[in-house]
Amino acid sequence: MAPRAIILDCDPGQDDAVAILMALASPEALETLAITTVGGNVPLEKVTRNALQLAALAGRPDLPVHAGCGKPLLQPLVTAEEVHGESGLNGVELPPPASTPRTSHAVDAIIELVMARPAGTVTLCPTGPLTNIALAFAREPALAARIREIVLMGGARDLGNVTPAAEFNFYVDPEAARLVFESGVPITMFGLDVTHQVLVTEERVARIRGLGNRAGEAVAGFLDFYSRHDRERYGFAGGPLHDPCVIAHLLRPALFSGRSCHVAIDTESRLGRGRSLVDWWSVTGAVPNAMVMDQADATGFFELLYKLLGRLP
Amino acid sequence: MAPRAIILDCDPGQDDAVAILMALASPEALETLAITTVGGNVPLEKVTRNALQLAALAGRPDLPVHAGCGKPLLQPLVTAEEVHGESGLNGVELPPPASTPRTSHAVDAIIELVMARPAGTVTLCPTGPLTNIALAFAREPALAARIREIVLMGGARDLGNVTPAAEFNFYVDPEAARLVFESGVPITMFGLDVTHQVLVTEERVARIRGLGNRAGEAVAGFLDFYSRHDRERYGFAGGPLHDPCVIAHLLRPALFSGRSCHVAIDTESRLGRGRSLVDWWSVTGAVPNAMVMDQADATGFFELLYKLLGRLP
Amino acid sequence: MAPRAIILDCDPGQDDAVAILMALASPEALETLAITTVGGNVPLEKVTRNALQLAALAGRPDLPVHAGCGKPLLQPLVTAEEVHGESGLNGVELPPPASTPRTSHAVDAIIELVMARPAGTVTLCPTGPLTNIALAFAREPALAARIREIVLMGGARDLGNVTPAAEFNFYVDPEAARLVFESGVPITMFGLDVTHQVLVTEERVARIRGLGNRAGEAVAGFLDFYSRHDRERYGFAGGPLHDPCVIAHLLRPALFSGRSCHVAIDTESRLGRGRSLVDWWSVTGAVPNAMVMDQADATGFFELLYKLLGRLP
Amino acid sequence: MAPRAIILDCDPGQDDAVAILMALASPEALETLAITTVGGNVPLEKVTRNALQLAALAGRPDLPVHAGCGKPLLQPLVTAEEVHGESGLNGVELPPPASTPRTSHAVDAIIELVMARPAGTVTLCPTGPLTNIALAFAREPALAARIREIVLMGGARDLGNVTPAAEFNFYVDPEAARLVFESGVPITMFGLDVTHQVLVTEERVARIRGLGNRAGEAVAGFLDFYSRHDRERYGFAGGPLHDPCVIAHLLRPALFSGRSCHVAIDTESRLGRGRSLVDWWSVTGAVPNAMVMDQADATGFFELLYKLLGRLP
Repeated sequence: MAPRAIILDCDPGQDDAVAILMALASPEALETLAITTVGGNVPLEKVTRNALQLAALAGRPDLPVHAGCGKPLLQPLVTAEEVHGESGLNGVELPPPASTPRTSHAVDAIIELVMARPAGTVTLCPTGPLTNIALAFAREPALAARIREIVLMGGARDLGNVTPAAEFNFYVDPEAARLVFESGVPITMFGLDVTHQVLVTEERVARIRGLGNRAGEAVAGFLDFYSRHDRERYGFAGGPLHDPCVIAHLLRPALFSGRSCHVAIDTESRLGRGRSLVDWWSVTGAVPNAMVMDQADATGFFELLYKLLGRLP
Repeated sequence: MAPRAIILDCDPGQDDAVAILMALASPEALETLAITTVGGNVPLEKVTRNALQLAALAGRPDLPVHAGCGKPLLQPLVTAEEVHGESGLNGVELPPPASTPRTSHAVDAIIELVMARPAGTVTLCPTGPLTNIALAFAREPALAARIREIVLMGGARDLGNVTPAAEFNFYVDPEAARLVFESGVPITMFGLDVTHQVLVTEERVARIRGLGNRAGEAVAGFLDFYSRHDRERYGFAGGPLHDPCVIAHLLRPALFSGRSCHVAIDTESRLGRGRSLVDWWSVTGAVPNAMVMDQADATGFFELLYKLLGRLP
Repeated sequence: MAPRAIILDCDPGQDDAVAILMALASPEALETLAITTVGGNVPLEKVTRNALQLAALAGRPDLPVHAGCGKPLLQPLVTAEEVHGESGLNGVELPPPASTPRTSHAVDAIIELVMARPAGTVTLCPTGPLTNIALAFAREPALAARIREIVLMGGARDLGNVTPAAEFNFYVDPEAARLVFESGVPITMFGLDVTHQVLVTEERVARIRGLGNRAGEAVAGFLDFYSRHDRERYGFAGGPLHDPCVIAHLLRPALFSGRSCHVAIDTESRLGRGRSLVDWWSVTGAVPNAMVMDQADATGFFELLYKLLGRLP
Repeated sequence: MAPRAIILDCDPGQDDAVAILMALASPEALETLAITTVGGNVPLEKVTRNALQLAALAGRPDLPVHAGCGKPLLQPLVTAEEVHGESGLNGVELPPPASTPRTSHAVDAIIELVMARPAGTVTLCPTGPLTNIALAFAREPALAARIREIVLMGGARDLGNVTPAAEFNFYVDPEAARLVFESGVPITMFGLDVTHQVLVTEERVARIRGLGNRAGEAVAGFLDFYSRHDRERYGFAGGPLHDPCVIAHLLRPALFSGRSCHVAIDTESRLGRGRSLVDWWSVTGAVPNAMVMDQADATGFFELLYKLLGRLP
């Protein structure tokens, strides 16, 4: 079977970094068409630089990287340096990028890549704010019908993390999230309910470091830094590997389970801004628009992660 | 130690019924000053009639019952006959009330009862929409400072039940809930997160029926009917005993645990209307205004319930 | 014909003061049952004191004055000392009140006065935030059907004054305004569109001062102070006599004209909070709930005012 | 002096039609770079066809026409066939378009045209929903700083027309309007307050018909149809020439006057959705972001209109 074509739309971020490395370590299963970047965890310039460095780390300096939107549709950008550090990839110093981003904008690249391929073949994998994806849908009305699926990290059925209501990615650009969930494209949503089950414990970091290769070394360094915040702030055993769940799901669907639900995004309320209202018990009568994941096999996830990282340089 | 003075502000409802019976079975610990009623599970006239019947069932036909608000502050009343049946107490036919409600309105009665007692001695136990309590605060500004505590059933940290956002009591009157949470009175909140741990299984109903007295017979009948909805609709093992948690907590605080948090009530958003935004991880910087319960010892709860029901006629 | 029974629910305020004096100068047409006060232009204690002083100024120290709500239903009180001065009646020093407010709360007094009279005979004249009226409706569901009419000052079809959206009285307590407009009671609304046509020019103040009596002297003093704000801040010819329009309308209906419309009150939006959305062109399909005035005969108004003030001591 | 470069972003519509003809009749003053279309008065396909026909009517079949967004950013398109008729240009049957729209999307064309010219030289003239403009700003962050000015038709300081709160263009895409008003680009706003002063009376239509040329004939036919709605629905003397005010202002600034204000767009409230909150009295403290027009010299406007139409074929 031909590998599945994907676009990684992201704001790396240590957890995006792991997602990128997992995807690029799986060419037999995933054909990564491009990385498109969006302002999120840290500003656009930094996430774009990070994407270039990560592609090189994975032995793919040729991979097209397109910079996208630097700010959300309607509001100023909010970033999360307290989690990711100043560069977004604190924890390891990667070599400066050897290549530069492509000249075309991420929104145009997404449209072009999807429209150039047969309908129903490209999967979008957003792991940052949904600004690029939303703009691409607004700009090209034919796009939605040609996408196979969106598998994204964002939202929460239960508690948010930036506010009691909202998870970071949806909080940063609630209007974009709403547009995407109303687009009609099939969505698989990895929200905090499931990603908080995939924690980077010290043992797991040790195992990754023990891989002995450059990628394992880098990931261990990222995750040491990244876990510090959740350990100190929340008393968790380690940082949750939010974004890599998206790639793990594409490679090994049995690792996760969930429920088909309607998800609405609140753009009207001060208190609830960016909340994903998941109709888990089908009380609204609205037709499901997303597969909302709530269970992860964390052990299986990490076994997959070790294997994939081990393949990299 | 003198028993603790409480006012039961409620909309019975089979689970309110159990709360009332538990309180009236514990005169050594709880001095129930009055039952005040509010339109909620079923309309005001029915909940008031139910309250009178329940007081009689507990051997307290003399207990003052005051009818209160028949509708929420700003919106029409929403009821829940699909859960509670037409009468609100479907499952058992109780004898018609032998007494009548007091002539004074619940709001006036609450104000009068609290203001007549020493400051800091009366605990309010609302288990329905908060309309009466909110109106009492609005009408008598000195009231809040004289109340010892509000221990209430309502809200949800995670999923709602009427909508993905909101639990029934807060959904019915969000403005009242907001007013109460902004009143400055110490609040202990039993939301769905904890009450869904206290389920009426068939074994537990059988144990209650086996008590052999009139109260046990009636409660078993109520709970058979009441559990039907949650078993069929949600696949739960039985109906959650929401309201009785309030009384159980007063009698046996060790049965429950939670966290001191800020809780805000969303009154602005269509999608989020009535949601209790619980700042579980202290991300907002707002000062805690409630003890939000999230863990219950269900076995301990039911042992207490059997014991108390066994004391009744 | 018997005089029309009215209750003046107000927050004096120089313009409320003129309204009170006009009403008390017209006993053949208006039977003022009571003045009820509400926190608004200045805090409750001050408006209540002002009401007592004004009743005495009008030769009616016996008139019942009931203090009501000191704060809006859901939010802190906002006041307007920049317009009315610290006392609310800056401009003239009246003698200290010779009487005290009645012991019963304004909300209870309104309910009692209306319920004690034949249905459809009492007109409410609110010229401050609608907190008391809203609470009375919430507390006594039979009240609305017994009121003849509400003639109120508040709202704006076009621009607001506190914000671009909202007029002061509705801005201070939007939830109360919404409750009143949804009560089903016939409402005549004097909003800024019409009250800004009734300006206190220097000539008009001179004419009032020239009346030569104590009331004229006091009103001239009030209006000199009161007009200062609008002259300096907005470049108006003088302060708008908002509240007295209510009484002038009851006495001389031909002075004003308007249109029967649906009016909704925005309680959901940050920007629009307290706005009265007047469906002037019947575009919503909603049934009219208010007569919204938009034209005033200012000359005729002042002729009436001179005549009435001239009757007072 | 070189003519001023403009882009007409519109949804013709009879009043857009007049604006287009006025602009194309003034090549000495206005260099129309392109017409870009947006779904609004009628759907995108129709407004694009209409734009092509109107360019031909003005003797400019070569003028680039770019089709843009067919629907608003976040909500379904609302149209206004009850005003404009099924085609959007009811009243006259124009010859079918001889040319076709350019292949590049309106959003890309706007970005390209502006970025290709010296900074500060291109004026955008939106007379429909602001979807294209908003998307262009979101897609190209450098765009806003390069635009000379936006002169637009939309909004209302006082009453809306689609709802009591909102004017049609802003109501159709409130999020786009908000994005534009927060863009930092200088804006001149022609809202209903001023456009309702520029009414197409029967005499004025007769004068246009009397011009004797093809353009005059067509405009007279459009305006007969267009005025029918406002005459019957609102009792106006004729339809308001909303959109042509934008072009008249560029040609003859003395025809209009207004005030520099802050304008916010309400995207949060059900009742107020799409309202332009104009801080006419500087009560918010926000820095002005728009010149809001409120006075028109209608006679002068029509003299200009007659003159310009007379120049056309």
